Amino acid sequence: MVELTELGKQARAASRALALASSERKNRALLAIADCLLENTGDVLAANALDLEAGRQAGLSEALLDRLMLNEKRVRGMAADLRAVAALADPVGEVFEEADLENGLHYRKVRVAVGVLGVIYEARPNVTLDVSGLAIKSGNCAILRGGSETIHSNRALARVVQAGLRAAELPGEAVQMIEETDRKLVLELLQLDEYVDLIIPRGGAGLHDFCRKNARMPVITGGIGICHLYIDESADLDAAVRVIQNAKVQRPSVCNALDTILVHREVAARLLPAVAQRLAQDGVSFRADPEALPLMAGLPGVAVQAAGPRDFDTEWLSLVLGVKVVGGLDEAIGHIAAHSTGHSDGILTGDAEAARAFTARVDSAAVYVNASTRFTDGSQLGLGAEVAISTQRLHARGPMGLRELTSYKWVIEGNYHVRP
Amino acid sequence: MVELTELGKQARAASRALALASSERKNRALLAIADCLLENTGDVLAANALDLEAGRQAGLSEALLDRLMLNEKRVRGMAADLRAVAALADPVGEVFEEADLENGLHYRKVRVAVGVLGVIYEARPNVTLDVSGLAIKSGNCAILRGGSETIHSNRALARVVQAGLRAAELPGEAVQMIEETDRKLVLELLQLDEYVDLIIPRGGAGLHDFCRKNARMPVITGGIGICHLYIDESADLDAAVRVIQNAKVQRPSVCNALDTILVHREVAARLLPAVAQRLAQDGVSFRADPEALPLMAGLPGVAVQAAGPRDFDTEWLSLVLGVKVVGGLDEAIGHIAAHSTGHSDGILTGDAEAARAFTARVDSAAVYVNASTRFTDGSQLGLGAEVAISTQRLHARGPMGLRELTSYKWVIEGNYHVRP
Repeated sequence: MVELTELGKQARAASRALALASSERKNRALLAIADCLLENTGDVLAANALDLEAGRQAGLSEALLDRLMLNEKRVRGMAADLRAVAALADPVGEVFEEADLENGLHYRKVRVAVGVLGVIYEARPNVTLDVSGLAIKSGNCAILRGGSETIHSNRALARVVQAGLRAAELPGEAVQMIEETDRKLVLELLQLDEYVDLIIPRGGAGLHDFCRKNARMPVITGGIGICHLYIDESADLDAAVRVIQNAKVQRPSVCNALDTILVHREVAARLLPAVAQRLAQDGVSFRADPEALPLMAGLPGVAVQAAGPRDFDTEWLSLVLGVKVVGGLDEAIGHIAAHSTGHSDGILTGDAEAARAFTARVDSAAVYVNASTRFTDGSQLGLGAEVAISTQRLHARGPMGLRELTSYKWVIEGNYHVRP
Repeated sequence: MVELTELGKQARAASRALALASSERKNRALLAIADCLLENTGDVLAANALDLEAGRQAGLSEALLDRLMLNEKRVRGMAADLRAVAALADPVGEVFEEADLENGLHYRKVRVAVGVLGVIYEARPNVTLDVSGLAIKSGNCAILRGGSETIHSNRALARVVQAGLRAAELPGEAVQMIEETDRKLVLELLQLDEYVDLIIPRGGAGLHDFCRKNARMPVITGGIGICHLYIDESADLDAAVRVIQNAKVQRPSVCNALDTILVHREVAARLLPAVAQRLAQDGVSFRADPEALPLMAGLPGVAVQAAGPRDFDTEWLSLVLGVKVVGGLDEAIGHIAAHSTGHSDGILTGDAEAARAFTARVDSAAVYVNASTRFTDGSQLGLGAEVAISTQRLHARGPMGLRELTSYKWVIEGNYHVRP
């Protein structure tokens, strides 16, 4: 049985070196990991083949097998992603606030690494390199716990990361993998608050709940999105169809994909048939409330049924869209308050006052005016990379990049000041 | 038995009104609470008399009785504090970052209230008004759990707060008091993650540990300070004595008071006798390491003894000072890394390079150059007020004021943008 306490101690010991490492050294490590990954593509693919074989024997679906499958192209993509992180600005050391105080003291708030991250994730092996790169660049150490389905791939990738760290004269223990699949180890990790500063779960709602209930340290929960667009009576309806289609169809399996549209009664009869027919071409089916249903039913090629009692509380992650007719802004905002998970919600409108009221009153991590919910993503919003999309309220909300993996300290300078 | 779930639901329902309330309305509530407090001074003091009587019968120390005692002057002080919070800037709605993205979207990050705070505290009844005022001003609701010693005072003060809220047409349920003293209710509160967004414990290390281990929501821990000053060989020694004296003596019972001095070997023989004699006048006694001991022993009026094995890991909260001679910056930083609680640590030096190295390498919430550790305080550092001093690393570190009681949301505006 692996001793998690030992991993924790080693991570804590390594965290000092990482926190103080120069940007140049951290970038050197990232580039060395990328090189090492390419040099060892054969070993990585051989390890991945073991996972694929075990997955087939366990009867995993083709979709799951594809998620965990690596090939030369995917490996080259992972190396390129590491180089991209190396090219990002280093948040550590950034002074984001400073002032002279009336008493003559000067203070600066300086960004510092958080310390040790515990990252718990499922299937995809690329997360191993992704998280390692972001942790190293932000001066953090990481203890990784991947899914049992990718254990061979993850072991091989962890070796690559550690070799790259050592090539840059940083401690290999900065990134460690829990190499056993015993589920009790997850609980143990969540109680290791002496050595782990932050837990980042990447997976379904069950994993997030488990972490929140059992962790003794802060947990970044998120990634669950029941997302809404409210189409106001003043919206450009042709443009609205395009935005709804994009938000629902462009990548339906992800958390920022659209789940429900709320349509102003005044435009429902014009908009809903157009939405139904356009999205039906992409294979979307609909769950409509009693007022929307007759406006969409019977159209050629359109699959629509009456919305069931839980349909407006469902994150579809598939080509299904909930549809509801509302009397106006207040009813739309009320519906969102009751059913949204606080991830991404938007209004389509030509009315600046409606937009202002909507953005003030809707309390989600990302609130949109006239845009697809699909933009809630670190790369789309200029963060360069993303470690999670937070729907909890403390520390960081929405897409989290390198800066959101830092804390800060106050540096206060005086001239032998004493407190009166 | 009080139904905490009911309190939680009412707080969550009220939190929408508070989050959206204008600064003017929130300030009106704060001023109304101050007025109501002064009008009901008699009732509040009568309730406080019950607590004092119960405290005397339970054999509380005079110091504890003084902490929980209210009189007309203290009540006027509490009213003045509420007016001072009303005068502070409202953090809610502040745009702290915005940009045009390359894809044409414009985003703003806007501060919003966190939601519902759970505050668990001990003895002092003024905390009830203090926390209520900061919560209301920052658009948050609060569920308060005070100590059983002040239950009568807290009930009376909660009525005052609720009356003031209603006078400003805000829901009285925005601030609720758990009016029973059963300790099981604390555990219940920590598991109410559906309704409570953040736990703020104000008390000793035991309370903080209990919250961290049992809370399902984020916890702001802090307020425990083993604080150090390192006196470099280049320090102005006369000035150093004044800073050490201030940091140790000005208010020894608080978390930012000095616990240990680390003195460079080159100046120990000059500095330590002066420190010993000056601080002995204030009643300070010393726990010295083997090298410091002979430099301080035998001086008239100086009480010094050899430091025991746990003395450098003790938060004194009293007129005791640990003393250790070190070989230089590296040893001082190593000692601080091993023994500090990450609250407030400083260097006294005339050497800019030493100051730079110290502030880069010491990882505490507040790192000082040539100043007393006693400045780690919201009012001293320009926050106007303080809800806690955080020594944990997520969300906020060091003194937390109104801004640190907010979260943020992304408001993203486009022109019917779709993701490519």
